[in-house]
Amino acid sequence: MSLLVIGSVAFDAIETPFGKTDKIIGGAATYISLAATYFTKQVNLVAVVGGDFPQTKIDILNEHGVNTSGLQIKKDEKSFFWSGKYHNDMNSRDTLVTELNVLGTFDPVIPETYQDCQYLMLGNLSPSVQSTVIGRLKNRPKLIVMDTMNFWMQIALDDLKKTLTLVDVLSINDEEARQLSGEYSLVKASRKILDMGPKFLIIKKGEHGALLFHGREVFFAPALPLEEVFDPTGAGDTFAGGFIGYLAGTNDISFDNMKRAVIYGSAMASFCVEKFGTERIVNLASHELDDRVQDFIDLVQFQISLA
Amino acid sequence: MSLLVIGSVAFDAIETPFGKTDKIIGGAATYISLAATYFTKQVNLVAVVGGDFPQTKIDILNEHGVNTSGLQIKKDEKSFFWSGKYHNDMNSRDTLVTELNVLGTFDPVIPETYQDCQYLMLGNLSPSVQSTVIGRLKNRPKLIVMDTMNFWMQIALDDLKKTLTLVDVLSINDEEARQLSGEYSLVKASRKILDMGPKFLIIKKGEHGALLFHGREVFFAPALPLEEVFDPTGAGDTFAGGFIGYLAGTNDISFDNMKRAVIYGSAMASFCVEKFGTERIVNLASHELDDRVQDFIDLVQFQISLA
Repeated sequence: MSLLVIGSVAFDAIETPFGKTDKIIGGAATYISLAATYFTKQVNLVAVVGGDFPQTKIDILNEHGVNTSGLQIKKDEKSFFWSGKYHNDMNSRDTLVTELNVLGTFDPVIPETYQDCQYLMLGNLSPSVQSTVIGRLKNRPKLIVMDTMNFWMQIALDDLKKTLTLVDVLSINDEEARQLSGEYSLVKASRKILDMGPKFLIIKKGEHGALLFHGREVFFAPALPLEEVFDPTGAGDTFAGGFIGYLAGTNDISFDNMKRAVIYGSAMASFCVEKFGTERIVNLASHELDDRVQDFIDLVQFQISLA
Repeated sequence: MSLLVIGSVAFDAIETPFGKTDKIIGGAATYISLAATYFTKQVNLVAVVGGDFPQTKIDILNEHGVNTSGLQIKKDEKSFFWSGKYHNDMNSRDTLVTELNVLGTFDPVIPETYQDCQYLMLGNLSPSVQSTVIGRLKNRPKLIVMDTMNFWMQIALDDLKKTLTLVDVLSINDEEARQLSGEYSLVKASRKILDMGPKFLIIKKGEHGALLFHGREVFFAPALPLEEVFDPTGAGDTFAGGFIGYLAGTNDISFDNMKRAVIYGSAMASFCVEKFGTERIVNLASHELDDRVQDFIDLVQFQISLA
């Protein structure tokens, strides 16, 4: 089934203990779209870039099968730019530069050819832009997944709560779940957040894996223990892209299939962190993905027969 | 098969955001022994207490089937006492009081009737006392599991490294693994530590679960997401007791059985944190343990068929 992805397409400049980059291609929708293409052939992007964004980078998206007819190019403006520096533990980072540029006035126009999309991924953007996208779709998609971040909880909590009532799955990290719910226990946090609207909640815990909550059910996927995390940028978006891409590709939104989608999302994220930016996820052979998923199976499987 | 447990039997005074206790029964060997009794009937304790230690608390151990003929009682001395206060996140704590008392001169005498033990659990004590115990056994046990802590890495690293060459399984937490190896990545840390002697390494990550390493194999068990962690004291020791108790009870030290042992250890630890001290693990019904293990199965199981 076809997937509509909305979010940022941007430049990032990243510094980690292993090195630093100049401006490289980044943005939530970039990671989401690229990851999703490994599972579904119909990935439709809505985003905005400036005249400074190279056509060669758009070509990379197209070569992976991403439909960029919904990518607005504002010739006289500049693309969104983020720069950050990771600390030695790779679990925390400082934002050095945030230049909103074209994102500051982003009006998400949905091309007519996108209207039949059955899966919608709302990458991290202002909650009001996210709800505008939902409002502009003639038919409600079969599944709407939303990502957000603590920044919007601080400056646009009311908008965020309104948008939460419109989506099926919320994907946030553990600190964001605690901030949104006011609860330290993630079990208690999940109950409060599920009461805000979403039927499913994914709590991403970085190197500690991810939890999927649905009613009183809970599923846990570990992160793969890696020799080295080279660059965590985009890992959460890559997870989300793998997750919704797998659901769209299989067109099955049962809880059991969502578990599989969490594993595939985790596998994609485990590749993402192995190199800078999108470098690793633009060049994956399909056997690599299968091998990685097998690693997850080996990591957690055990046999216990209860009487 | 019979299990020999050595470690502290002590008093703890604990303060958490949920309340505080007076002196209650604690100590690594207490938690280990109690947890192990759910899996094997032959648990033999070597430890030392002072004259202040109440017979009623020893009776509790006996009622659970722990053989305390190796428990030395030094009538004119005081028992080991530890007092600590947990921070709001329950992941960190301050030690308020440490009184070594009888532990300062502990000479671990092994009763003759313990000599046939095939499983040995070295609870957290000075590495030289731990190696003394191994030296006093006429036959090497089938499996030796060792717990230790960062304190000994700071003040007795050479002794610790010597003892490491004598054991089969080392059980430590993530920060201790990083300190011992000098590596941040737990995968790299595991390689270095396995090179120090143990054939198996367990890295406990508290609320983030536990990893079992053996050569290039790795198994991950999550911690159960709980509504509330009431008191983490003893959770690591309870895990270790469930782990080695299960191995002794099944008398199978294959990697597949160690995976099961990690799950049973994790299940026992998940009970431990629900109440103060040993309160929860002295009163477990067997169906509760089965139900809890089923929760772990439900938490991580998924079905993916790779072509």
